[in-house]
Amino acid sequence: MDSRKPEKKRKFVKRKQDSISIPALKEGVLNGNRSSLAKAITLIESNAPHHYEWGQELLGELMPHTGNSLRIGITGVPGAGKSTFIEAFGEMLCNQGHSVAVLAIDPSSSLSGGSILGDKTRMEQLSKNPKAFVRPSPTAGTLGGVHRKTNETLLLCEAAGYDIMIIETVGVGQSEVMVRQMVDFFLLLAITGAGDELQGMKKGIMELADAMVVNKADGKNKQLAEKTRRELNQILHFLVPATKGWNSRAYTCSALEKSGLKELWDVINEFDKTTKETGSFQERRMRQKKEWFYTMLKDRILSDFFLDEKIKPAVPRMEEKIKSGDLTTSKAIEELLQLYKKS
Amino acid sequence: MDSRKPEKKRKFVKRKQDSISIPALKEGVLNGNRSSLAKAITLIESNAPHHYEWGQELLGELMPHTGNSLRIGITGVPGAGKSTFIEAFGEMLCNQGHSVAVLAIDPSSSLSGGSILGDKTRMEQLSKNPKAFVRPSPTAGTLGGVHRKTNETLLLCEAAGYDIMIIETVGVGQSEVMVRQMVDFFLLLAITGAGDELQGMKKGIMELADAMVVNKADGKNKQLAEKTRRELNQILHFLVPATKGWNSRAYTCSALEKSGLKELWDVINEFDKTTKETGSFQERRMRQKKEWFYTMLKDRILSDFFLDEKIKPAVPRMEEKIKSGDLTTSKAIEELLQLYKKS
Repeated sequence: MDSRKPEKKRKFVKRKQDSISIPALKEGVLNGNRSSLAKAITLIESNAPHHYEWGQELLGELMPHTGNSLRIGITGVPGAGKSTFIEAFGEMLCNQGHSVAVLAIDPSSSLSGGSILGDKTRMEQLSKNPKAFVRPSPTAGTLGGVHRKTNETLLLCEAAGYDIMIIETVGVGQSEVMVRQMVDFFLLLAITGAGDELQGMKKGIMELADAMVVNKADGKNKQLAEKTRRELNQILHFLVPATKGWNSRAYTCSALEKSGLKELWDVINEFDKTTKETGSFQERRMRQKKEWFYTMLKDRILSDFFLDEKIKPAVPRMEEKIKSGDLTTSKAIEELLQLYKKS
Repeated sequence: MDSRKPEKKRKFVKRKQDSISIPALKEGVLNGNRSSLAKAITLIESNAPHHYEWGQELLGELMPHTGNSLRIGITGVPGAGKSTFIEAFGEMLCNQGHSVAVLAIDPSSSLSGGSILGDKTRMEQLSKNPKAFVRPSPTAGTLGGVHRKTNETLLLCEAAGYDIMIIETVGVGQSEVMVRQMVDFFLLLAITGAGDELQGMKKGIMELADAMVVNKADGKNKQLAEKTRRELNQILHFLVPATKGWNSRAYTCSALEKSGLKELWDVINEFDKTTKETGSFQERRMRQKKEWFYTMLKDRILSDFFLDEKIKPAVPRMEEKIKSGDLTTSKAIEELLQLYKKS
């Protein structure tokens, strides 16, 4: 019996460690402490209710220190060389004195539990760079949950002082639209090819891009890449630009040979300058804040409903009644709503 | 002054007409009275709260008389000849003694107020057929609203005795998935061509289809259509079938020459028979009922929130506070939720 005591004590200690000091964490994040940042992100990503609350409290404290980075979204079909591109591009930015945070949205993780983007070992070089912070996609929860977690992680990284955010996603599903809603500049990675077969790209995705870059413009592929670039420019010419007052154009680069990256960075800087002058940069940020508010509000309303103690057991009961024909769908819904509002 | 009196009286009469007798309407719909059916659909489609309530009451009354039709979804890219196909196919069914209701989901209408599917004058021939009922897409409201209205219209048409439902949609956006969730059999209309360029089809749409039919297999196009059919069959061979225990295959037809339609109808009948024997027909109907319940429940929860008298003015106020940085998004959301739950 006595042997239990030390175990109990250990458990108690463990629980105490779990109660994090928000002021200390805030301090750590603001000082750019990587382990504080990682801890803060873990809070944001946790599905435990008290972690969520702490995370939100911390985020509220850090809010005044966010918004000061340039947010870049990058997408492309699998095989476009996104990882290699981001490594090379991120290294260049770090060498120029920037600090870069790379986040990922992987729609496959929320659907299957698996991952298209692959494991944490990618971007090994960049991960080791003291000026860079690479965070894989949160894997738990719905796509909406991944959305929230990524957006809040972005804010935490800004508070930690990173001045370039790179949000990466696979060019499938709805995640590109989600990323577009989070970033200032959206870059679409392409590979050589021609016509429709060219990209394996989802329709409508080119309309989201502020620039396209044909990667792997090296060796024998160089000429073909140039040809693809011209073709893409012809298509872009006919599209409504993603950003008011900015002409989306196509470029070439080789992440392997590290060519074309500086030129692309010049384009992004030009975009930053132009859109801040015209005000479309600030406009988009405002609009994004508003969309974000509505997305999160809807998520919160629905989860408050479905996690309600009275509703939880009632929903499957209603489902059965509808199946058996005892109740119409609309009547079941009204009954549930009444039950919720009484509680 | 006296001249006003008759006008007042007219207004009064008008208002009285607006208060519809549900029992009479129920009777009319069950007797297959077209004008009662049209009136019932108008109630369902109306955005006035009292119309909505009457519509739901009527629907509840009619529920036991629904579910007895074969529900067929039809989609295809613009230019695949959907209207001509549905006219020819619908006429054939009517001639065989069936009664056919044709409904449309037009995703463009909810986005732009405009319509890709075109105006009510389409399907002139079929519209005149006493055995057919053609209803254009509801144009007001969100895609979710259009979804609800179409699904409830389908139920009303079943209660009115139509035994074949055809739900048509344009092959763009998310409406195909929506239609797939409403129907037993999903038909994808294709045209001749080759490879990727072939269909202008959205990725993933072939996985939804229980059959594909290459339309316009007439004149010089006949051979090409046959070639396309074979190619489509090769692709279908590699896909997970849309319906358990059923091999989705490609066929050819000419709506213009009215050829291949009977053969296609045989396929649909074979599908009906097979899936009812294996039980996958009934399984899908049950699953659809469940999905429908959750979709409508979420819609209802959100609209109850956003139409709440206290919430309505508070939301833009919170939006301003977030914009100005006075409040974090998550705190604004919590405040709104508290306000809602107090009311």
